[in-house]
Amino acid sequence: MSALPPSSALQDELGTLCLGLARRAKTAARVLATVPTAAKNRWLLAAADALESHQDELIAANARDVEAAPGFGLNAAAIDRLTLDPKRIKSAAEGLRQVAALPDPVGEVREATQRPNGLQILKVGVPLGVVFFIYESRPNVTADAAALCVKSGNAVILRGGKEAIHSNTVLHRLLSTELTRCGLPADAVQLVPTTDRQAVGHLLAMSEFIDLAIPRGGKSLIQRVAAEARMPVIKHFDGVCHVFVDAAADLEIAERVVVNAKCQRPGTCNAAESLLVHAAVAEEFLPKIGATLAKQGVELRGCARTQKLVPHAKPATNDDYRTEYLDLILSVKVVADLDEAVRHIETFGSHHTDAIITRDINTARAFTQRVDSAAVMVNASTRFNDGFELGLGAEIGISTDRFHARGPCGLRELTTYKFIVTGDGHVRE
Amino acid sequence: MSALPPSSALQDELGTLCLGLARRAKTAARVLATVPTAAKNRWLLAAADALESHQDELIAANARDVEAAPGFGLNAAAIDRLTLDPKRIKSAAEGLRQVAALPDPVGEVREATQRPNGLQILKVGVPLGVVFFIYESRPNVTADAAALCVKSGNAVILRGGKEAIHSNTVLHRLLSTELTRCGLPADAVQLVPTTDRQAVGHLLAMSEFIDLAIPRGGKSLIQRVAAEARMPVIKHFDGVCHVFVDAAADLEIAERVVVNAKCQRPGTCNAAESLLVHAAVAEEFLPKIGATLAKQGVELRGCARTQKLVPHAKPATNDDYRTEYLDLILSVKVVADLDEAVRHIETFGSHHTDAIITRDINTARAFTQRVDSAAVMVNASTRFNDGFELGLGAEIGISTDRFHARGPCGLRELTTYKFIVTGDGHVRE
Repeated sequence: MSALPPSSALQDELGTLCLGLARRAKTAARVLATVPTAAKNRWLLAAADALESHQDELIAANARDVEAAPGFGLNAAAIDRLTLDPKRIKSAAEGLRQVAALPDPVGEVREATQRPNGLQILKVGVPLGVVFFIYESRPNVTADAAALCVKSGNAVILRGGKEAIHSNTVLHRLLSTELTRCGLPADAVQLVPTTDRQAVGHLLAMSEFIDLAIPRGGKSLIQRVAAEARMPVIKHFDGVCHVFVDAAADLEIAERVVVNAKCQRPGTCNAAESLLVHAAVAEEFLPKIGATLAKQGVELRGCARTQKLVPHAKPATNDDYRTEYLDLILSVKVVADLDEAVRHIETFGSHHTDAIITRDINTARAFTQRVDSAAVMVNASTRFNDGFELGLGAEIGISTDRFHARGPCGLRELTTYKFIVTGDGHVRE
Repeated sequence: MSALPPSSALQDELGTLCLGLARRAKTAARVLATVPTAAKNRWLLAAADALESHQDELIAANARDVEAAPGFGLNAAAIDRLTLDPKRIKSAAEGLRQVAALPDPVGEVREATQRPNGLQILKVGVPLGVVFFIYESRPNVTADAAALCVKSGNAVILRGGKEAIHSNTVLHRLLSTELTRCGLPADAVQLVPTTDRQAVGHLLAMSEFIDLAIPRGGKSLIQRVAAEARMPVIKHFDGVCHVFVDAAADLEIAERVVVNAKCQRPGTCNAAESLLVHAAVAEEFLPKIGATLAKQGVELRGCARTQKLVPHAKPATNDDYRTEYLDLILSVKVVADLDEAVRHIETFGSHHTDAIITRDINTARAFTQRVDSAAVMVNASTRFNDGFELGLGAEIGISTDRFHARGPCGLRELTTYKFIVTGDGHVRE
């Protein structure tokens, strides 16, 4: 066996490998852009069947990942998320079938006008091109992301976590085989075939071939992608979501919404992390919600006023008000009025999802106008900021950026548009 | 007089100055985001009046710029563009009045649905925040850009060319004075008060305060902004626009469109730079269009086949096919079929504007699907890719990017959206 090549040669090799991935993705994207909806849906349904019929193979590959997981430092919850079982495979297959049922955003006429001179103007949905999707652990995200990208006419380069490499390799092979069987370019879905972290850096520099990067995972992953990417990024860093209980709140509704927003799935980005209570109702509301949340095992960290009204509340620092706990912890503050609530949300929030509970229509109006978040809820749980719940269908992520797409990103958010202008010899005067 | 401070202190001073601009813009943007349409329109009309009533002061300031212009190396055409006269001031004022007449994209309900559970979902237009607009020479762009940004609820930091600093200073003072008079924040429109080039670099790094950079000017300016900006950029580098004359073209329409696309205003980004002719009609069409264009003073640079059919055509290189001449020069190529035309456009074009001339509906369909440009024209001049002509109203630029906005960027493209979700105590199951 020959000696290992020097590390610069390895780097060159990795760069060449990544360049190949990116070039093939671009070529596949050109083909995919004009593929009929029916062909894409055929693939989605065939891929769903393939996942189910290769259940045993998938579970065997996944078992290797699960076995190696403690060596990567995964805790029990992370290992649970990593694990595939027949139910989860069925659910991934169902996900593919649901994407098949969604309308195709490509070719969708978004606006149509006829100008006074008779020119016909169509604004038509077209794919973005090539998506580089970087994510962690859960292997069913692999199928989701591939489905959303291909249905929206985009080629995708998948970069899953090293913890899921065996599961992802089989998943990718199944998806890719069905692409070929359905007459679509196999390179429409590619998996980075190495766990070398530097591959991500190489690909993030290839803005000539890759049109969009989407990181999904922990904050450090997202920060790295945002800092290195030379192409646009759809991302959200934090979900520091608030519920503001106004002076005119229906306090029963307030209690129900706060409990749901905090406890229904505390590990999600649209779970509430902070409760703001109008001073006028603090005395009535805080002891009650404090007791209810205590029963749910929620730890409260509050301002001085909160601590007086809820004796078991710990003191909150400004750092608490900035923290996305993703856990059964809630920061609490009593505020003097709507102004203070809005200022607090703008100072400590993350522009993700914020809710007001009020019966006063003018206060609701002011709150929804002034709070600058992707989704603003009135008398509803923050947990509704989600592609399915808002009616967009499956989502590839939730954006807290202002550019291109904000909030849940579904099929349409994975596209752009072109103008198609038809005349009969029109020239400009 | 004290000695000059060392250059690092000057740099700190410049950084502090830029940070002040950026912070004040952010504060103004927060206020502007919820200002009623009527107040923004009142300002636009008052500013239009102020421009006209201060005509003499504007022309006097502009005279100082014009006087200094040769020292900056401006040629006659550039000095002409720089010069203000009563007609141009009237036209700038009319531009402001036209923006007042356009619909407000802020608060516009873009989608409205009710979910099966009764949740009401609105998708509502909101401003992007702070726009940093970097442009060259023409002072009436100052009024245009300020009008578009403020009407769309954005604060703007204007950075005009040093050649126009005196004109821009007076223009900015007039716009800003009327903001205060109309009860809007004066910092909604700021002018970078120094011509130091490094100020641009400082501001492009301030993504915490500035949400979007828009460069308008020469390619080197745009490249610099794209490379340095830490926030999204709306830009177009090149307008290498094609007209493809298909085998099934109406050759009279082809002639009319080619002449218009090349000659009506050759210095614009949507002027044609390259003519592709289907081999089946080359013998009939090329000698005729060659003669017509020669009369208009257009120099042709063609492939071997073109040169045979148009003796006065010079040879074209691949560089010619990539060049945005912005002048009375046209590159020409005879192509075997639609496939070759599309491949040529994808290889040498800039995804800006490309036209086909054909009577064949299937060829038109294939061309509009396969050519991946911001605007694809059928039997119409490339010159129609323009905000006014496509019905968007005034534009701040034309984007050849795929992200956020493509093609002409008017008021709506200067906004994003938020979801407003209203329930009556809805929680997620």
